[in-house]
Amino acid sequence: MQQGEYTCRSHCDMKIGIIGVRGHTNYVVNALGQLPDATIAGACDGDCGDDLSGFLARLDELEQATTVYDEYATLLAEEELDVVCIAGPFERTSEYILAAAATGARILTEKPVANNYEDLRALAAAIRAPAQVTPMMALRFAPAFYTAWAAVKGGAVGDIRLIHAQKSYRMGERPTFFHARETSTGLIPWVGSHAFDWIWWFTGSQARRVYASHSQVGNYGHGDLEASAACHVLLDNGIQATVNLDFLRPATARSHGDDRLRVVGTDGIVEVRDDVAYLMNADKDGELELLDPPPIFPAMLLGGAMEGAVPTFRDAVQVTALALAARESADRRMPLEVPII
Amino acid sequence: MQQGEYTCRSHCDMKIGIIGVRGHTNYVVNALGQLPDATIAGACDGDCGDDLSGFLARLDELEQATTVYDEYATLLAEEELDVVCIAGPFERTSEYILAAAATGARILTEKPVANNYEDLRALAAAIRAPAQVTPMMALRFAPAFYTAWAAVKGGAVGDIRLIHAQKSYRMGERPTFFHARETSTGLIPWVGSHAFDWIWWFTGSQARRVYASHSQVGNYGHGDLEASAACHVLLDNGIQATVNLDFLRPATARSHGDDRLRVVGTDGIVEVRDDVAYLMNADKDGELELLDPPPIFPAMLLGGAMEGAVPTFRDAVQVTALALAARESADRRMPLEVPII
Repeated sequence: MQQGEYTCRSHCDMKIGIIGVRGHTNYVVNALGQLPDATIAGACDGDCGDDLSGFLARLDELEQATTVYDEYATLLAEEELDVVCIAGPFERTSEYILAAAATGARILTEKPVANNYEDLRALAAAIRAPAQVTPMMALRFAPAFYTAWAAVKGGAVGDIRLIHAQKSYRMGERPTFFHARETSTGLIPWVGSHAFDWIWWFTGSQARRVYASHSQVGNYGHGDLEASAACHVLLDNGIQATVNLDFLRPATARSHGDDRLRVVGTDGIVEVRDDVAYLMNADKDGELELLDPPPIFPAMLLGGAMEGAVPTFRDAVQVTALALAARESADRRMPLEVPII
Repeated sequence: MQQGEYTCRSHCDMKIGIIGVRGHTNYVVNALGQLPDATIAGACDGDCGDDLSGFLARLDELEQATTVYDEYATLLAEEELDVVCIAGPFERTSEYILAAAATGARILTEKPVANNYEDLRALAAAIRAPAQVTPMMALRFAPAFYTAWAAVKGGAVGDIRLIHAQKSYRMGERPTFFHARETSTGLIPWVGSHAFDWIWWFTGSQARRVYASHSQVGNYGHGDLEASAACHVLLDNGIQATVNLDFLRPATARSHGDDRLRVVGTDGIVEVRDDVAYLMNADKDGELELLDPPPIFPAMLLGGAMEGAVPTFRDAVQVTALALAARESADRRMPLEVPII
């Protein structure tokens, strides 16, 4: 189905490379069944010594063979890859993007796309069309969020004035790279990126100013990883947003995450909660019939067909700049202007 | 039932006086049926020229006669009142409280209890035990909020780390005193007081720092009244709270208000939404059986029997100080320390 929507360099056997297995490689692996001509041509740990056996066992289950490379530079040099999936170590994401983009491959990457402004600015300066860098803002393709977004774009709430976004996760037992700011990026960039993306995606308005706080209390031994955070974002036209982030969802909770969004406009209110989208305006008060978008990896390959839903490199820069500003605001306990990068 | 819980000065015919009819006089009027010996001995408009006919018609329906006074000072001087209900004009609330407290009456008053720090400080200096000033934080007695609070006090969520509170109202057609900051107090103090009270009531923690924003866009001709606001509050021990306030609930909405609270602790999460209280912790995941507190006016008369639920003058000062600081923060676009008054 997606076959006609993307072009392969190797006569339609789409060759995928994996750099790192810390993030959401599942976005690619889970889509393999929908892409019969796609193979994981090669994989590596991103030069950090991570154990790939779990990832390889999952490929085994899918009867996919792959070549394991010791160094990502060798993977990129030796395979003529159509797509590179970048998923850790997170502090090197911008480096991998630059290297992968230089090969001409399409890129699906973890976000934030940089862990500091210097790397983000270098990335923004280097990546130019036709490079295609799709950040893993996969929650855009959760049906309730996609449906709510389509309603707002259709004018269902008038002009957006106030937003609240929530990301609440179980902490569980996380690998040690989550214990340090340098390798986890911290709660605000790692988890908050999704919430910041919703705000940017729904409004299309520039975030101007952010004030945030975060706390490690309640992180159950996860080093300097924050367990809770609160952000206040001011956008163009005086649009206001608040974001609550936490790893405090009880271990016994029904699901890993509890994602919510409430978008209040001059003519109505749209909400997402428990995987349901609600609309209240003069014409409607109740659940919206859910649309059925593809998962992020097929959606990325569909490109323009998704009409503004597939996250772009521009989106990645926007979201990362806000995430880094929010984290710094929380560290410095002061509101900060969001740099325009 | 409540008869034994309060003492009247006039041999158990409880005499109530009304100053102002802009706020929630209904808290008293609706409770008259439960207090057979209570009468509205006298009423006045608070010396502002307001039309009392709607209020008097409501008393007529209840077959209650009252004496109308031109000036509140005369009402206080000529009736030996047990209780004074203060409900406008809001910019004079602290003046009325001082005058009513001087007569020895119990006071049920609108909040915020002052519209500026000077008045609030004067009030805090003057009101001393045994004066009983109960602010109209009536939403404490909405069953879902009361139930959630009792669960948190019982240890259901461990230590509170993160709170989000929402107050969303229909704007409707509001009288002209809502059009000006001076007479409405503004969205943050008028509507936000409830949210700030929940935060204070649930945590018992001092609010240290607030950062807020507000906007008049979408206020449908209501002068300088704000239609939306967002607040970020830092409390002792790094507890974080966000508050969303709006008058943007569609005119067609099922109810006037949509009040919500989410309280995240180290051991669980309590929520209030749609008049239901939810708890998620190691022992429970679902709705709490609702407790059945009395309405605020009987609860005020029960006093100590409500075990920390009846709002006190201390609570009123705490909430008003935070509300005034938040409003000033939004005006000045900077975080402010919350004064300890």
